[in-house]
Amino acid sequence: MKTKAYGAHASNKPLEAMDIERRQPGSHDVQIDIAYCGVCHSDLHTVRSEWAGTLYPCVPGHEIVGHVSAVGSEVTGFKVGDTVGVGCLVDSCQHCASCGEGLEQFCENGFTGTYNGKTPDAPGHTLGGYSQQIVVSDRFVLKIRHPEEQLAAVAPLLCAGITTYSPLRHWGAGPGKKVGIVGIGGLGHMGIKLAHAMGAHTVAFTTSESKRQDALDLGADEVVISKDPDDMARHAGSFDFILNTVAASHDLDAYTRLLKRDGTLCLVGVPEHAHPSPNVGTLIFGRRSIAGSLIGGIAETQEMLDFCAEHGIVADIEMIPAQKIDQAYDRMQRSDVRYRFVIDNASLAA
Amino acid sequence: MKTKAYGAHASNKPLEAMDIERRQPGSHDVQIDIAYCGVCHSDLHTVRSEWAGTLYPCVPGHEIVGHVSAVGSEVTGFKVGDTVGVGCLVDSCQHCASCGEGLEQFCENGFTGTYNGKTPDAPGHTLGGYSQQIVVSDRFVLKIRHPEEQLAAVAPLLCAGITTYSPLRHWGAGPGKKVGIVGIGGLGHMGIKLAHAMGAHTVAFTTSESKRQDALDLGADEVVISKDPDDMARHAGSFDFILNTVAASHDLDAYTRLLKRDGTLCLVGVPEHAHPSPNVGTLIFGRRSIAGSLIGGIAETQEMLDFCAEHGIVADIEMIPAQKIDQAYDRMQRSDVRYRFVIDNASLAA
Repeated sequence: MKTKAYGAHASNKPLEAMDIERRQPGSHDVQIDIAYCGVCHSDLHTVRSEWAGTLYPCVPGHEIVGHVSAVGSEVTGFKVGDTVGVGCLVDSCQHCASCGEGLEQFCENGFTGTYNGKTPDAPGHTLGGYSQQIVVSDRFVLKIRHPEEQLAAVAPLLCAGITTYSPLRHWGAGPGKKVGIVGIGGLGHMGIKLAHAMGAHTVAFTTSESKRQDALDLGADEVVISKDPDDMARHAGSFDFILNTVAASHDLDAYTRLLKRDGTLCLVGVPEHAHPSPNVGTLIFGRRSIAGSLIGGIAETQEMLDFCAEHGIVADIEMIPAQKIDQAYDRMQRSDVRYRFVIDNASLAA
Repeated sequence: MKTKAYGAHASNKPLEAMDIERRQPGSHDVQIDIAYCGVCHSDLHTVRSEWAGTLYPCVPGHEIVGHVSAVGSEVTGFKVGDTVGVGCLVDSCQHCASCGEGLEQFCENGFTGTYNGKTPDAPGHTLGGYSQQIVVSDRFVLKIRHPEEQLAAVAPLLCAGITTYSPLRHWGAGPGKKVGIVGIGGLGHMGIKLAHAMGAHTVAFTTSESKRQDALDLGADEVVISKDPDDMARHAGSFDFILNTVAASHDLDAYTRLLKRDGTLCLVGVPEHAHPSPNVGTLIFGRRSIAGSLIGGIAETQEMLDFCAEHGIVADIEMIPAQKIDQAYDRMQRSDVRYRFVIDNASLAA
């Protein structure tokens, strides 16, 4: 089954229109007509081969929303016409301890990413959501309960949303807790909305005074300008949890110092150049932790989507046609987007 | 009240005999004739002013055991003749959240260390256990229930013991858990004994093949030679918890890789030169943590002493007279001690 897509044939080539193959739906498969696909930093890193191991042709995209257009004979949870989503995962081993606990993102045999993952399908690696259609095992398809008119803005929940929701839940963000969100970008703006909706006292950290009002509008109870040592010092030892969405190399001690005893600084981005080595004394004198978190499992992603539907939460987006993707990447690298680009996949028909 | 002690008048002077003042016991004080005092790396760092802020004269020692020789009028928990201990803390604010939870080591107003801490007593800073007597508030005195003949070997429990016991308990070492102990020195040898007694599958990491049999004798179920990449790789992703007692700068990634999902690598030593910056991807792909831990509170120190008495656990020690302390420091720096020096305080009378 041929479908139109947008991708790159090599790391040094711009993205362009291409035809790709999708498998015929198997008995447990769901075929989806993709309406919108969010644009994640990982897309850019992968398609430009900034991380090792990109396979070409590369079709990125793992913030996928659309409508079911066919289902396999054994599929009971979805029917044609349903509004659904697909995130960063399209398969996992289903028999390891992590899969057994619904934590497929930590599959001990390696999950299959929505793009650039190994698959028996042509061309041997998965191709993502910058395409008109996708065929996915029903275990990895999510139900979307938001109003239809919000659908484009739901797309970024599938990666930016779950990447922030999962650690906020895991480390207990909620009423009575003081939670920090570092960085107000694609991930951070979702972190602010989610922490606020969970009932935590939510503090946004930004280097830029210009983002103060935006952060408040997103739901922050307080905003701290991280370049202002006095502003930072006022919050020393006061946070239960800080979610750090900034992948660029920076001083982590500035944040670990702000944690209460037993507090955790959680990182969700891998820096290209290592952060300065964190001060061990700051961890010891306060039993503090630095941790990492990776997206979320399928059950938790569904929980997050339902939570967002219930609380009226979507991403703040700017819609683009697929043909503008290279410009969007350039703007994303300059943080010139509030806060997530979403491709209108109807543009692929052009 | 004058008492004989052993300490230094300056960072560049060897330790020598000196007379110091102790306060008369107040209504809540316990006066202790010190029988033995363990020798901790902190003693050496402090007395030689390798950490900032050493006040002179400096009398180190915070692994103190002895017998009560007088009690204040309001003291109900101790009587003359009782066998007791004093660890790293002799006071704290008693009204902050951490003190309220019995975590005086994290006192938000700053605990008073057993030496080099601020005090109204002469000479304005606390003087430690390399002395014949000490006077301590009854809240900071521990009961020792070991047989009297083990008393010298109990002394190191007051710092090396609690520093390893507290994180092992906090992170749930016990039956069904695989726990690593990195470094087989003063702290590490206690960590092996304690993790084993708690029922954890205990794995000792050492750079030195020569310590393999020792580690097994201490209670390790397995020994891994950390310089052997194949030996390390066999344990990838398998540990619930790793307690890292090595303060010298080293590659932490070698250990975070060995953690299961949600596992923690806990550091208890502050390195003089920073560790190489830990790999963030290893934390993210496994939701792993790097944490710190600091000694333990008074209640937990008593729990640890009782646990050790019940399980027949003491430190492996080498006894020295106070006059040999500088040689002991030199040997300790070369890791030439199995595993803790303990001063026989009777030598101070000489």
